[in-house]
Amino acid sequence: MVGGGQLARMTHEAGIPLGIRFKLLSDTPQDSAAQVVGDVVVGDYRDLETLRSFAQGCDVITFDHEHVPTEHLRALEADGIPVRPGPDALVHAQDKGVMRERLGRMGIPAPRNRLVRDQADVAAFAAEGSGFPVVLKTVRGGYDGKGVWVVREADDPSAAEPFKAGVPVLAEEKVEFARELAANVVRSPHGQAVAYPVVESIQTDGVCDTVIAPAPGLPEAAAVHAQELALRVAHELGVVGHLAVELFETREGELLVNELAMRPHNSGHWTQDGAVTSQFANHVRAVLDLPLGDPRTRAPWTVMANVLGGDFPDMYSAYLHCMARDPQLKIHMYGKAVKPGRKVGHVNVYGDDLDDVRARAAHAAGYLRGTVVE
Amino acid sequence: MVGGGQLARMTHEAGIPLGIRFKLLSDTPQDSAAQVVGDVVVGDYRDLETLRSFAQGCDVITFDHEHVPTEHLRALEADGIPVRPGPDALVHAQDKGVMRERLGRMGIPAPRNRLVRDQADVAAFAAEGSGFPVVLKTVRGGYDGKGVWVVREADDPSAAEPFKAGVPVLAEEKVEFARELAANVVRSPHGQAVAYPVVESIQTDGVCDTVIAPAPGLPEAAAVHAQELALRVAHELGVVGHLAVELFETREGELLVNELAMRPHNSGHWTQDGAVTSQFANHVRAVLDLPLGDPRTRAPWTVMANVLGGDFPDMYSAYLHCMARDPQLKIHMYGKAVKPGRKVGHVNVYGDDLDDVRARAAHAAGYLRGTVVE
Repeated sequence: MVGGGQLARMTHEAGIPLGIRFKLLSDTPQDSAAQVVGDVVVGDYRDLETLRSFAQGCDVITFDHEHVPTEHLRALEADGIPVRPGPDALVHAQDKGVMRERLGRMGIPAPRNRLVRDQADVAAFAAEGSGFPVVLKTVRGGYDGKGVWVVREADDPSAAEPFKAGVPVLAEEKVEFARELAANVVRSPHGQAVAYPVVESIQTDGVCDTVIAPAPGLPEAAAVHAQELALRVAHELGVVGHLAVELFETREGELLVNELAMRPHNSGHWTQDGAVTSQFANHVRAVLDLPLGDPRTRAPWTVMANVLGGDFPDMYSAYLHCMARDPQLKIHMYGKAVKPGRKVGHVNVYGDDLDDVRARAAHAAGYLRGTVVE
Repeated sequence: MVGGGQLARMTHEAGIPLGIRFKLLSDTPQDSAAQVVGDVVVGDYRDLETLRSFAQGCDVITFDHEHVPTEHLRALEADGIPVRPGPDALVHAQDKGVMRERLGRMGIPAPRNRLVRDQADVAAFAAEGSGFPVVLKTVRGGYDGKGVWVVREADDPSAAEPFKAGVPVLAEEKVEFARELAANVVRSPHGQAVAYPVVESIQTDGVCDTVIAPAPGLPEAAAVHAQELALRVAHELGVVGHLAVELFETREGELLVNELAMRPHNSGHWTQDGAVTSQFANHVRAVLDLPLGDPRTRAPWTVMANVLGGDFPDMYSAYLHCMARDPQLKIHMYGKAVKPGRKVGHVNVYGDDLDDVRARAAHAAGYLRGTVVE
């Protein structure tokens, strides 16, 4: 697996019972996954020779993030190394322009969008649609709210920012959505696929805060529609492994595709404790072309809450408190140094009563961050 | 953790979400746990200087097996390294003679037993009790049926075997039990303890084959009695970490203690998929003095079946078959080379219908071994 973040850490964890020999390419020996994996190569994934050397002896290569250059993936494939997801699929998670163009051709509903070259293009895009605000995104490199600007009027000073990086910029209408959903599916090279229950994802400042599985009050037909949409995207794009389709649910109940991610995803962390087979285990099974595991829930409700760093670098006493307060709490820490706002872990809580489950997850995440006291 | 077997492998897996930095002392780099742990020291646990060097920088030392010499554990403690369970507790899992003497003083029911020096002692022991057969055990070093002999008459040729090793020998009456049970508990340094549901353990040729959680048809009072007994043993012996108390249930419903193990135990593997908190996670929490997790079941029935090696060294096609046949099957492989009769993994199946759950677990384990075909 390329990339030493928490997704690789949790993928390794899920691979252990499957008997998988896991090899990691990590930026540093201190990265989240590098702390817990046996076979670690420290190196730069942007360097093709580093990737080639790392790939020696691997049965398949997969990814913790979308940042490996597409041409490097093609070079690995040319060397005979299976890359899953492959570059032709992954480019849709790497480049929002490519993704928008492709999903548009597939007729999949999305916010109105257009590639723009300058502020005049933005003004024209706004004028031809419903006006401002307009969302601007660099097509590559954005993450957790980074690389995204909301432009509120034509001469908004922030409207110049996106064009400074020299990366193509995508303009999108700002959808007044009712909430955000995510449809997670996993697909194998031979075409087997499973769909997890559709979840509600609650964001704060562009960062996922809470995930509720399944999405409360979502009509069965809408849930099935979202699953079918995600399965169709996975099939038509040739995705192998986990695909997260982030969706806006409009006030009219329409579902619009916001983003794609082709790796285990924050909106699927609840599956570790709330589903028969976790997204991490199914990602491993998919990229190795093993039969997939059951994606169904093990409890009526599971809530995931991200643990963000607060003002205090030492979470230890809060960690003890949360474990003692709720012996059913499932804590997942990433081994990262605490910095304000940084994702350093998450908690899962499952049960029969959504209000109770949600309150316990929010309490633990808040207490660990230092925003809840008692 | 000292010892690179599958118990260390699964303890590391359980420690990852807890944010634990896991360091392993392993006999070889190929051992089950050494394949998946980042920080591995290869060395001989019987050598005190190796242990001392390994212990540098560890917050606490715990064990995959009971074979570390008691005097070495005392030396580590004298160096200021917390050893959990400590030598005064662990000796009761290392030495069956010490265990029998101590539990006898505690008034805990057990098979009639006595240390014996020779065959004449065995004959006298039999004559004073209910005669032959008598079970002979070396007090140290036995495992999975090794170090145990059933002597059927006074001049049985096997009656001389146990005395050849130069290790003290314990004679025990052969109990005509109805079945075997196990009571698993976990205890912290500060005295918090949790008791898992009592399970039935089905052995074949002295090796655990199947575990059913909870033990079918066990009266509530008997289950509570077994849990209380295990908690009392943990408390009085000062156990820290996981304690498995293996029990004989007689036809009259009496519970007799057979063996003790002070580490995660085969009779607790079902907890990985069938309990809120696995035995491995609670062992880690206990030895680090973290609050313990909820030991209760997540399903009405969970069945664990050990995967033993069969005649074919390559299990891959059987592995694919089992995953495809039962997408809810939870497979736990140990990364070991397949040898006939060797434990190379286990499967867990949970659900509402015991017959169905048991049949699926037996099918998967048998198919992987090659004794079931379809």
